[in-house]
Amino acid sequence: MIQSGKRFCSTLEIFDAKHHSRGTEPMTAFNLSRQPAQVLAAGSRHQTGTLISETFGAGRRVLLVADPVMAELGHLGELREVIEKAGHDVVTFSDLASDPKEAFVDAAVELGRAENCDCVVGLGGGSALDTAKVVAVLLPSGDGAANYRLAVKPLPWRTVPLVTLPTTAGTGSETTGTSIISQPDGVKNWFWGPPLIPDMAIMDPELTVGLPPFWTFYTGMDALVHAIESRTNRYRYAPNNAVAERAISHGISSLEEAVKDGSSITARSGMMAAAAHGGTAIGNTGCAVAHNIGHAMGSLAGVPHGRAVSIALVQTMEWAAQGAPDGYDAVAHIMGGEGAGHVHDNLHALAERCGYGLSLDADEREKLDEEALARAMVEPANIDMLTATARDAEDGDVEILAAMALR
Amino acid sequence: MIQSGKRFCSTLEIFDAKHHSRGTEPMTAFNLSRQPAQVLAAGSRHQTGTLISETFGAGRRVLLVADPVMAELGHLGELREVIEKAGHDVVTFSDLASDPKEAFVDAAVELGRAENCDCVVGLGGGSALDTAKVVAVLLPSGDGAANYRLAVKPLPWRTVPLVTLPTTAGTGSETTGTSIISQPDGVKNWFWGPPLIPDMAIMDPELTVGLPPFWTFYTGMDALVHAIESRTNRYRYAPNNAVAERAISHGISSLEEAVKDGSSITARSGMMAAAAHGGTAIGNTGCAVAHNIGHAMGSLAGVPHGRAVSIALVQTMEWAAQGAPDGYDAVAHIMGGEGAGHVHDNLHALAERCGYGLSLDADEREKLDEEALARAMVEPANIDMLTATARDAEDGDVEILAAMALR
Repeated sequence: MIQSGKRFCSTLEIFDAKHHSRGTEPMTAFNLSRQPAQVLAAGSRHQTGTLISETFGAGRRVLLVADPVMAELGHLGELREVIEKAGHDVVTFSDLASDPKEAFVDAAVELGRAENCDCVVGLGGGSALDTAKVVAVLLPSGDGAANYRLAVKPLPWRTVPLVTLPTTAGTGSETTGTSIISQPDGVKNWFWGPPLIPDMAIMDPELTVGLPPFWTFYTGMDALVHAIESRTNRYRYAPNNAVAERAISHGISSLEEAVKDGSSITARSGMMAAAAHGGTAIGNTGCAVAHNIGHAMGSLAGVPHGRAVSIALVQTMEWAAQGAPDGYDAVAHIMGGEGAGHVHDNLHALAERCGYGLSLDADEREKLDEEALARAMVEPANIDMLTATARDAEDGDVEILAAMALR
Repeated sequence: MIQSGKRFCSTLEIFDAKHHSRGTEPMTAFNLSRQPAQVLAAGSRHQTGTLISETFGAGRRVLLVADPVMAELGHLGELREVIEKAGHDVVTFSDLASDPKEAFVDAAVELGRAENCDCVVGLGGGSALDTAKVVAVLLPSGDGAANYRLAVKPLPWRTVPLVTLPTTAGTGSETTGTSIISQPDGVKNWFWGPPLIPDMAIMDPELTVGLPPFWTFYTGMDALVHAIESRTNRYRYAPNNAVAERAISHGISSLEEAVKDGSSITARSGMMAAAAHGGTAIGNTGCAVAHNIGHAMGSLAGVPHGRAVSIALVQTMEWAAQGAPDGYDAVAHIMGGEGAGHVHDNLHALAERCGYGLSLDADEREKLDEEALARAMVEPANIDMLTATARDAEDGDVEILAAMALR
């Protein structure tokens, strides 16, 4: 079971589940992933250069891997200047689309090696950070990314310093040890392992003020789903529960304002905290059925990730919650109520106030049928997220869950 | 002020205090140090070899830096075997006394370089771990430790993997970015910086069952003092408060049993959790006046560290608490009461139940006088811990505090 959980989990889940102090177990035992240094403050991006100097040393040659839209917005040029001002050289790589492909990783590694880079900085949403993380690991060897799909071959220990600057607040890639990188035919593969966990995440809420409401809402929901699944899945345990609860608290109190007033630094800061803590939390426990179904929906019908997992979470919650009433009670408590029913209603009400829905629209539903969804849910790349759910899926449950998700 | 706090703090305290979301400040902002992967479980030391393989790669050449008493107890030989069984080579260095000296660091670095070691494992109490941490940082360059006293010259970024296995539960060295190493004339210097933060802490409570009650009590109190000072000092802030509170909760519920029944794995586990979380907490905020006075008492009269800081904490609490009533209320709440008075009485009662005292004995008092103590408290090496206290020391306060500590 732990071996399965490990797949989508950056932590070292080498111990049997009994070693975790879960539920009412009296013994104190835990297993926490490595965590990056985390700086969250408005304007903190302007400290990137000095933070690199103070932590990793003077005169670095930095490979700056950025979303191309960051160049258009001027953030790439600004960050380059900030880093150069602190005495480092900077080589930029922004030749990547929103869907990070192995070819982009390999091209960035080649560029970094040709330019003798010895530090990697990622700037952008989850895709750009996912790319930068794998690039930093492979930079010394020049090995092709394809060799490390699904951790078939373990990633080498990373010796090149790695800094992330997220420009969305959701995926948590800035703190986690996972990346999703697609192979040439478009199939998305997980890459994971401790070497992917960054050394430092610089979270500047000002970088997210331009994010449109739709993306603010659904990436924000992604952060909430990370935290809720981490707080309620099979591998939940005390020290991590506190992290997950903090993420939920930040997300619940900030999301509506972030959607309605994108320039609110207070709300944007809260969402960055939710994303960072949500990433840490899910890095320690892995996710559960909402990600299982959400990933399947993404592959089959191209439903955006945050939208897919948040729909899957609320639509299947009544089933999943029966395996972890304690976890759902804790989540409900943060939302000012009791039980999974309150969590369900609270998330629907939040979505409604934000102007968005938590069920599939007609177009999406048309591309999906129960049978295909159920099949995708038990594929090798997805099954571990299902078994990490606190409730066991018995005969027929996968079909029931698929039907619930498509309601 | 932050520049001062930085001295005894492994975090990147580059932002002005206003960036922290302290007290009732509405803005979410924080600054968390890098954290090692943390495995806490009975018997976890037997996983050291496979953890190294899975995280840092196969076929490492491990420099195992251990307390000499660990060789006598058989723990060194056992750990060596466990690591070798997983396919790594092991070179041991245990030529160090309880007071780690720069000469030991330099000798271990020389040995590791001669043997081409590419991974460092520390086994022992705070002294052994403090040594191992600096050794890992200096291994690639072979630079002498003396160059890095008080971080006058910043430590180079560490590229050699570093694992800690603590055999006491108190200092938190297994998770922090600080080491205390003495120079040839015996003066103790702080070394600090992110490169000293280990990559992994393997915390096996079975390694602490042999610790005698006196040391169990006072090292355990050290962990509690770390957590309480972190929760109440000038730099306290929300995400770290939760970590500190968890440490206090573990310590308060486990210390008496650990002292009275040293073989209780439940109690020993609780104390290891208290020490690890206490280390993380103080790594994020630095300490305060109890450490200021405690260090001075250690230098002037050789009072053991945990004993010195716990005496200093309870004796000066009525003064310090006036600067952070909110912090002391939170600590009192964990102890089932209200206000600093409750914390004070609760700690005294705990000590009494354990059979130990929280005031100096006649011998110790004889070696100390108020004037000398007050002078030591404002020395450059100590002053930052005083200014990190939530209450400002006004004219005459240092003398008042010295008198309080010597009551």
